[in-house]
Parts: sequence; structure tokens; C-alpha cells
Amino acid sequence: VFKIPRGTRDFTPDEMIKRKYVEKSIRMTFEEFGYREIQTPIFENLDLFTAKSGEQIIEEIYSFKDKSGRELALRPELTAPVIRFYVDKLQMNPKPLKLFYLGNCYRYDRPQKGRYREFEQAGCELIGTDTPEALAELIALSYNILRNIGLKDIKLNIGNLNILSSIFRKLNLSKQQQKQLIPLIDKMMFDEINEILTGFGVPSQESEAFLEILKTNEIKIIEDYIKEDIEAEREFTKLKEIFDLIQNIFQIRDFQIKMSIVRGLDYYKGVVFEIDAPHLGAEKQLCGGGLYDLISMFGGRETATSGFAIGFDRSILALESEEFDFKPLKIDAYVIPYNEDMIRTSLKISKELREAGIKTDIDLLRRGIGKSMRYADSINAEKVIIVGPREIEDNSVTIRDMTTGKQEIVKIENIKKILS
Amino acid sequence: VFKIPRGTRDFTPDEMIKRKYVEKSIRMTFEEFGYREIQTPIFENLDLFTAKSGEQIIEEIYSFKDKSGRELALRPELTAPVIRFYVDKLQMNPKPLKLFYLGNCYRYDRPQKGRYREFEQAGCELIGTDTPEALAELIALSYNILRNIGLKDIKLNIGNLNILSSIFRKLNLSKQQQKQLIPLIDKMMFDEINEILTGFGVPSQESEAFLEILKTNEIKIIEDYIKEDIEAEREFTKLKEIFDLIQNIFQIRDFQIKMSIVRGLDYYKGVVFEIDAPHLGAEKQLCGGGLYDLISMFGGRETATSGFAIGFDRSILALESEEFDFKPLKIDAYVIPYNEDMIRTSLKISKELREAGIKTDIDLLRRGIGKSMRYADSINAEKVIIVGPREIEDNSVTIRDMTTGKQEIVKIENIKKILS
Repeated sequence: VFKIPRGTRDFTPDEMIKRKYVEKSIRMTFEEFGYREIQTPIFENLDLFTAKSGEQIIEEIYSFKDKSGRELALRPELTAPVIRFYVDKLQMNPKPLKLFYLGNCYRYDRPQKGRYREFEQAGCELIGTDTPEALAELIALSYNILRNIGLKDIKLNIGNLNILSSIFRKLNLSKQQQKQLIPLIDKMMFDEINEILTGFGVPSQESEAFLEILKTNEIKIIEDYIKEDIEAEREFTKLKEIFDLIQNIFQIRDFQIKMSIVRGLDYYKGVVFEIDAPHLGAEKQLCGGGLYDLISMFGGRETATSGFAIGFDRSILALESEEFDFKPLKIDAYVIPYNEDMIRTSLKISKELREAGIKTDIDLLRRGIGKSMRYADSINAEKVIIVGPREIEDNSVTIRDMTTGKQEIVKIENIKKILS
Repeated sequence: VFKIPRGTRDFTPDEMIKRKYVEKSIRMTFEEFGYREIQTPIFENLDLFTAKSGEQIIEEIYSFKDKSGRELALRPELTAPVIRFYVDKLQMNPKPLKLFYLGNCYRYDRPQKGRYREFEQAGCELIGTDTPEALAELIALSYNILRNIGLKDIKLNIGNLNILSSIFRKLNLSKQQQKQLIPLIDKMMFDEINEILTGFGVPSQESEAFLEILKTNEIKIIEDYIKEDIEAEREFTKLKEIFDLIQNIFQIRDFQIKMSIVRGLDYYKGVVFEIDAPHLGAEKQLCGGGLYDLISMFGGRETATSGFAIGFDRSILALESEEFDFKPLKIDAYVIPYNEDMIRTSLKISKELREAGIKTDIDLLRRGIGKSMRYADSINAEKVIIVGPREIEDNSVTIRDMTTGKQEIVKIENIKKILS
């Protein structure tokens, strides 16, 4: 027996119902916000990803040579391909561009709970504007997507990398020292941060003040801390404008400031944000995004860019853990010919129901009523239509409601009305 | 500037509209026929494909080793993965199983018009039955899918490989000789077939009769030819039953018998069919399918299996060549704040429209009315809502219909009603 490749998944019809529901909902929210769907190939030239993330990314992705020796890689994420697409073909389009996408991504990772080698992401790019209303709308969009799929318990955190940089400057940290700190900040390992800062010769009072900034969700504390740093203050004014719009216009309540968001990536700058499902523990982050610059890195004309990515599998995990009521797979009608003479009429009835958009199945194995009824039950049929010789003489069939068990004799011409 | 890999494509929003429309329509028809969607990974262990198609398939596909030395391959088609999935996990499900899928496939092929290295396929498997009504329904489904996406000029051809085998036996052809003939039959190279048959020592009268069978679409001619071959006659009786159902129950008119359909594959047997868009020339085949046995080859318990695959890109090509009227990309409303003081109210209006399911965009660049109007035009906005200081004093805005150019002053609370 052949096996599925390690770390990948097959999806049954029941699982697909969930995935298709979430995909449809995500698509709808993006479109309501004026975003337009695009698609890029599943693999790219390898150099696209090393240019964005450095050579060490090769260790974490599926890379391979094609038969002409071209170095290719299954995409580990969607932003680089989309920016490549933009620089190559969409630069002349009127700005802003609002682009969204759904698609599979691949990482050569140790498979573990909620982490697969093939996984789906949804995301978007907003190209050509970084006004406060643009960023507030982007953040509200990510939040609305998760709310609209049905999540109740989510938390939005917003930070700002430019302000963090100002703080680094204030602490007199070199680029190299910052690089050492960033992964620890990302993981909120405060004791380790304190230790390292001491090692760097940062006075303990300053370390403590910095740690408080990383831990607090009070705007006032941060505002006081950065006072007199003109650049940080200007950034902070913009950030407060965004907060104001998110709270008072987009009516989002469960958000807070969080200066420890670093997104671990070199090309982010300015506003960054993340959305968590706190009850999910280690896999709690559902969404991450912010302002970044990748276009000029890819040879395009620089323009403000922001975007976010939503983890599809984790969003489904979060819905499941909230016991979200996914609509089950079902079929509207299952037609059973009482005997072989009834097959033609049964097929005709099925055909008419299908043409009316009614999901209809029919016994294709010529088995008895009892077996067919059990099959109808197994595929979650709402109604069963039994086509029998006695009823058919009167142009009628028997319709059984599979929930209530009630049966009634119905004229063939009235079946459609009863089912729809 | 980074380039897209050779033979692959990026899809713009306008192209995605077409693809999403076709996908949605295909999905709907499958579901109306009681089929359920499944999904398998984009890559499989290489041996799955060599087991099905032989070692030479490696030349035509993307195969590669992962970091643990596992031999993997991007799937060149979807039947093998789905049967692997079935044997591995779905064998115990109640029969019949009606499974469908849409997904990208990959071939390391010379790129040419209508042929890409990454291409999309839709398809299905019907597992557990091969009654005439089951096969007639399957064939009708494939035909209905293509009709329902909007195609007008399509032609359904139906053959039978068991009958073809009987004919081969009648001509006393060895397995080896049959193998030589099959590709020529597939390409309908009748002169070459004649030559080879002569070389095999087949009398010219018999060759000519055989060629007529391959060329004709008249049931009677084939029926006369196979008379007295009991096996072929039994198969033919079943085939005629299928024809009867297709014509008289499923109401399909544009189909014919075609004995030269060989599907070029070792695991097909019995009924085979293809659907062409005749006006597309060399790329005319949109769909191919039939009865086959792959389950026992993959280690499962043998059971009747049939299915078909539809080429997604060619179906779109066929729609385009029939000048099908795809609905264009559009946005319902575009909101323009007259000046910066109007931004908050404009955002509020956008939010309410979006919550009502109205696709709404808003100027995020703080530019003048003129530029914003041109942008609204470029994104094909149906209505523009201008939020100006004078109208807002009266809780009103100006709504402009972008098709007629008509403008009217509307109370904010009435915008939704006018737009939906």
C-alpha cells in the first residue's frame, strides 16, 4: 500500500466542508473590503526566497533542481511571490492596489501538532499607501476576517518597530546587539533579555524601564518613556491615530499595544500587529502583519506596502476549540428505485431535481430498500424519495423526511416544491 | 528583477474572476450529482506514479529528493493520489463513493499554447458500481459540467476498450502488436495503422473492415462487425443501454460512438469517453474518462471504479473562443471623502456598507475628487459616494452612478437601500 508523504494530509469530505466554509468566508470579507484575488505558482526560483530571507532559509524549505538544472523551491510563504508578481507585472496599475490570495505553502519542518509540511495561508498586500486610515483599515480587515469566520475569543496586539528602534538607539545598542535581542523579545523571554542587557553594560534602571515597555499594554507608560525622542514621538502620534480609528470607527474592543512584537523579519518597519487565539497555547498566533519594504529589495520602485498572513489550519483549530458549529455535509435528496423497472423514472426525477439546483443522489447499485435507506442515512440525506410501482401509476412517489421519519405520497410534479 | 519559473503563470484579478467562476460552477454541478470534495497533497512519493505509469513517467514530471532522501514528485494527475487516499483511508466507507476534486498538477513539458507546467484539473472517481445507470450518470455529469460552465459547442464521444480487445483477438494480434497500434489509434493515423496491419500479415479485407470500425460513428456497422463474438456482444448490449439512458433520460443529443478512443492507458477497461470542443483544433480535448482498475494495483480490494478529468485551462480557452460573457470584476461602491475632515465619516459609511455585504472601497490616499473619480473608474466601481461637508450637515452624501453619470443627494441611512 502506498503512503502519503510525511507531514502532509488528505482531506475527507467532512474536513473539506470546514475548509471550504472558512475559505469562502475569508474570500467574502476580503472582497467586501475591496480586495481582489490573485494567484502565483506553487514553486518559484529559489533565489527569490534567499534574497528575502537569507541562505539559511534553504534548510527549512523544499528546494530542488528541475531537469534543466534550474534551482526551484516550493513556496514557504506568499508575500515574496506576490511582490515578485507586482514588480514584474502590476507596477503600472493605479494605486493603491489591494490584493489578496489563498494558497498552500511548504516548509521542511518537523511535523507536530498544528504544524504541517503542506499548509494553507490566506493573506493580502496593500500597495501604495500608508495613511493612518489605510493601516487602520488593514488591521480591522484582519480582525474582521477572523471574526467573520466565527471566532469569538481573539486578541489583537499592535506594536511599532520604528519606536522599538528609537528605544534601541536610546539604550546605545549596536545593530549586532539588537540582532541578539530580537529573538528573545519575540519570545518574551524577559529574564534572558535582562541578563543580556546587563552584559551589554546597560544600567539596571534603564534595563528595567525597557522591560516594562516590552511588558506593558498601557499607552501612557510608553508615551512617557519616549518623550523628547522626536522621531519616536512622531511615530507614536500616528500610532495613536490608528488606535483611535480602530477603536472608535472600526469598533474593535479587544486590542492592545504590545511593543514586543518584532515579527522576526528584517523587512518590517513601522506598525506591526498580530492576532492570537489565547486559548490555543503555543499555537495561538493566527495572524501576523504590518508595514514592510520588500518592493525595492526586489528591484521595484519603492512604495508603501503593508499586509498580513492568516494561518488557515490554526484558524480551523481555533474554531474547533471554540466548538464552532460547522454545517455538516448533507445531501438534499436520495432517490431509491423500488425495483429495476423504476430505474428510468428515478433517473428522470433525479435529473429534474438537479436542474433545479437540488443536491440529489440516486441508488446506483440496484439494492433493496433497506440497504438503500441505510446508505441514505450514511450520506446524511435530508429526504428519501422512494419510486415504487404502485405510487408511480398515480404519478406519485413516497417522500420520507429522514429527520422526523415522516412519510408522505407526493405527485412527481410537486417534488421540487417540497424539496426547495 | 526576479522572474516567474518557466511554464508557470501568475493570475491577475481579471483572470482570477474567470477561474473562480469556472471552479464555482464545476463544484456546484458535482454537488448536485451527489459528489463530495476531497483534497490530497501537491506532492506524493514518486513510486506512486511509477507504479501507475511506469518508470518513463519520471522524464515528464517534477521529481526530487527531500532532505531525508525521500523520492518525491509533484503530482502529474489526480487519479493516482485519490486512489492512494481511498485504499489507505476510505475503503470501509459505504459504497458507492462519489468523490470529486480540483487542484493543480505539474508536468515537466515543453511549454506551448494551452500547455503549462502548472495546470489545473477537475475530476472525480465513482467507486463501487458499474451498472449502466451509474456509467450513464457519470458520463452525463461530465457533459453537464461543461454545459453548465457555459460551453455550447462540445461533442461527446464514447468507446469501449473491451470491444476493441475482442476485435484485436479477432485479428489475431499479439499483446505486443496491440501495444504498437494503440498510440496510432489514439491519434487516428489510419494510413499508418493500415500499413502496420499489412506488416502483421492481416488480410487487406480485414484491415479495411477494422479501419471502418475505427472511423465510423454508426452503431449498426459496429454491431454487425462483432456479431457472433459473444463477449463483445454482451459488452455491446451494455453500451447500448448506456447510450439509451444518455439520449433518452439525460437528454444529451451531441454524442456518438467512437471506437478509436483508447485513453492510451493500461488500466482503463470497458467504457471510455472523451469530450471535445471541436473549434479548438489540436487542444480540443476538454475531458477524458472511463472505467478502470487501479485500486487492486495499489493494494486495495478490487471494486468497480470509473472517473474522468477535465482540463481547466482548456475549458477556459474554449469559453473564451466561444466569446463567453464572463462577468467583469467590479466593486459595488467607492467612498470619497471630500477633504480630510470627512475621513472618519467616510470610514463609518464604508464599515456599514461592508457589514451589509456590499463590496466597498474607500480613498486611502487623501487625494482630490478628480483623481479619486478616475481611480473609481479604474477599479470598475458601480457607484461613487462623495462625502462632502455641506451634504453631511444634512446627514446626506452624494451618490453618483458610474454607468449613467447621474448624481443624487441621499440620506446616510438610505445608502444601503439604494446600493443593495
